[in-house]
Amino acid sequence: MSVQKPSIPKGTRDFGQMEMARRNYIFDTIRSVFRAYGYQQIETPAMENLSTLLGKYGEEGDKLLFRIQNSGEKAALAPEKGLRYDLTVPFARFVVQHQNEISFPYKRFQIQPVWRADRPQKGRYREFYQCDVDVIGTRSQVNELELVQMVDAVFGKLGVRVGIHINNRKVLTGFAEIAGAPDKVVDITVAIDKLDKIGLDKVKEEMAEKGLSEQGIAVIGQILSLEGSFADKLGAMRRLFQGGSASGISSQTGLKGLEEVEELFGLIDAVGIQAPVELDLSLARGLNYYTGAIFEVKALDWEIGSICGGGRYDNLTGIFGLPDLSGVGISFGADRIYDVLTGLELFPAALTQATTLLFAVMGADELKYILPIARDLRAAGVAVEVYPDAVKLRKQFEYAERKGIPFISINGSSEMEAGTVNLKNLQSGEQKAFKASALQEILNFLK
Amino acid sequence: MSVQKPSIPKGTRDFGQMEMARRNYIFDTIRSVFRAYGYQQIETPAMENLSTLLGKYGEEGDKLLFRIQNSGEKAALAPEKGLRYDLTVPFARFVVQHQNEISFPYKRFQIQPVWRADRPQKGRYREFYQCDVDVIGTRSQVNELELVQMVDAVFGKLGVRVGIHINNRKVLTGFAEIAGAPDKVVDITVAIDKLDKIGLDKVKEEMAEKGLSEQGIAVIGQILSLEGSFADKLGAMRRLFQGGSASGISSQTGLKGLEEVEELFGLIDAVGIQAPVELDLSLARGLNYYTGAIFEVKALDWEIGSICGGGRYDNLTGIFGLPDLSGVGISFGADRIYDVLTGLELFPAALTQATTLLFAVMGADELKYILPIARDLRAAGVAVEVYPDAVKLRKQFEYAERKGIPFISINGSSEMEAGTVNLKNLQSGEQKAFKASALQEILNFLK
Repeated sequence: MSVQKPSIPKGTRDFGQMEMARRNYIFDTIRSVFRAYGYQQIETPAMENLSTLLGKYGEEGDKLLFRIQNSGEKAALAPEKGLRYDLTVPFARFVVQHQNEISFPYKRFQIQPVWRADRPQKGRYREFYQCDVDVIGTRSQVNELELVQMVDAVFGKLGVRVGIHINNRKVLTGFAEIAGAPDKVVDITVAIDKLDKIGLDKVKEEMAEKGLSEQGIAVIGQILSLEGSFADKLGAMRRLFQGGSASGISSQTGLKGLEEVEELFGLIDAVGIQAPVELDLSLARGLNYYTGAIFEVKALDWEIGSICGGGRYDNLTGIFGLPDLSGVGISFGADRIYDVLTGLELFPAALTQATTLLFAVMGADELKYILPIARDLRAAGVAVEVYPDAVKLRKQFEYAERKGIPFISINGSSEMEAGTVNLKNLQSGEQKAFKASALQEILNFLK
Repeated sequence: MSVQKPSIPKGTRDFGQMEMARRNYIFDTIRSVFRAYGYQQIETPAMENLSTLLGKYGEEGDKLLFRIQNSGEKAALAPEKGLRYDLTVPFARFVVQHQNEISFPYKRFQIQPVWRADRPQKGRYREFYQCDVDVIGTRSQVNELELVQMVDAVFGKLGVRVGIHINNRKVLTGFAEIAGAPDKVVDITVAIDKLDKIGLDKVKEEMAEKGLSEQGIAVIGQILSLEGSFADKLGAMRRLFQGGSASGISSQTGLKGLEEVEELFGLIDAVGIQAPVELDLSLARGLNYYTGAIFEVKALDWEIGSICGGGRYDNLTGIFGLPDLSGVGISFGADRIYDVLTGLELFPAALTQATTLLFAVMGADELKYILPIARDLRAAGVAVEVYPDAVKLRKQFEYAERKGIPFISINGSSEMEAGTVNLKNLQSGEQKAFKASALQEILNFLK
């Protein structure tokens, strides 16, 4: 066989031991918070039937699906399977397929890779993990609150200061309705987002270009002029939605949205959240999809865009035959969170230290002397390595150094005769001999 | 959009919350043992270049690779990528590709799904997890010992009684050499395996049919007649390998194999292993691949075949341009271990209990009263749910029951006035009121 220069497909990654330790730290932290709120993990297959995936992510999404060649005789026929593109559609499929085994409200989380045939570029991969948490089968704002609490808890544990932005699709719909342009929700939201950058006049110009009526533009002007406290703004919006805007049009949807916003912020106040939470009317994330609350989380001390986001959806499972099931969920962006923790140097140093103690080996007899001690330390929960070969001590020291092992134990014939174990702290240089049977004292030294 | 009946590709599985809790229990147990021995986790991409995979698993394996259609304009061309078929070849590719970042001896583990276009049948899936641990870059038998220790520790923790079978490829090669048929290692090993079932005469007949000479058959007869203690057998084999067999041929490879076996069993004796360990000369697992020790682990109380196995290989990375790197590893069969634990009812009951306490909700005020208490309990490490809707209590009780939540807390206006929390143990029926601020007492009750 000829020798191949090894490589991996573009857009994919190997994760070495340090990256894995750090990724596991992120996932373990997130998982522990999900569990504290009663969310349970599921997994779905990497492959789904293409019929499950197609048409769910728009035309562009269909193109970005990785398709799997049929096996055997059907290889030449059109593929029937594709790789998971996100965790949301498989979750919807799962809920419908297993609806009789599930008790609603159903709280699940899922941490798995997804694949997209996107053009690889910095920070965009063809294989990456998603980390989704959803509750389905309840319309209560308590769920929105829990998601906010979980975001707060996760980033609190990770030591990342974040800001939580909340919007509500119904409020945005209300804006479009009272502007007399119920089909222009996206345009109006984009306009709101641009206010700071281009100013009110330019925004109005753009709205005119998008075909909004003069009256509609006047309404947008009223919305963009909202001022005062959170309660003031809510009160002003309520009056607009009740028919008090320039158009005189009222919006029940807008009023319902305000009610949701008010309830959610009331709950957030009642329970108390560390992170600043802000009603952000410019937040347009996933607008075609969400029907209530919309969330986005940003790191305050590191510029990287959204590191977590989500919202409420009302008909996720309808396409698979189970209509009217409302749910709400968020997704944590593992790669970006990794970058934030790296950038801010927030990964605990101990993560990369896998092994606590290395037993150096001088020969066959010393090896047999060491092995039972190593066994007992492992049973007591210490990560211990025994160097496999009786090579030069310098080489064994180097191994400890390269692997970041903080303690080394070198034992020769004198230790064997005395029944002792020699331990050395490689950072401080402190060295001490213990009775081989004095497990507790050894454990204390290794702390 | 029309309604689709949801399904998943044949041979794949959804894992619901109970299965996931149980699978995580297995993986967490295995992981904790790997870590106690200084093995560190890596992950490789689901997709590898087909050039990495093809030719590594035999002709049959090539056929069973899932190939991924190229995206965009290259869709009609032959696929360039395939799904991971096992964890061994990607590991070899990883070691060569990252050889400059790795310090040898390199100890890694990897727990990821693999995909095979096998015909699905009971217990055989097209997507399943492998769980591999390997050390590469050392020939020391200490590594073999560690693998045996890890097997012992994993199954000890899981409560599964196992038998560990060990063989050595060099010994088998030695048998073939002294039988004058160095190309018939597999035939001879199969013959040894059949002795108990068909008897010595039939085995000799078969060996003749396979083209073994009369003298060779006589040697096989000598091997199959080995009796006595472990030391007796080793001594007798040594004499055969030194030229004392019917053929008079000696085998250096056989002698080297015996030396390895002797050293490994000596180390096992020195450290002590719970599980019975046995030299099993009929063990032929992965014979084309292994060059030294061969391992196989079987559950003693549940008939299911091998639940863990592996061995030493000498040229895993050669095909990728890094020759002469000896390694040894084992793979845990997660699906079979799952079946054994299920069959023997060894899964801890607490695994399926995700949430400890459910706060029932009577109304909006009660909700706001409860939320901070729930928050504090979660912060103290208790998994707590707050029922999201103030529906009938019966429905909330049913939710607790279906989800196996052992404690419920129902609080109305009287508890709010008194500043207390009412807790009920749903198993024992015990009910008690606590001051809402008496967190420690509440935690004690929930234990």
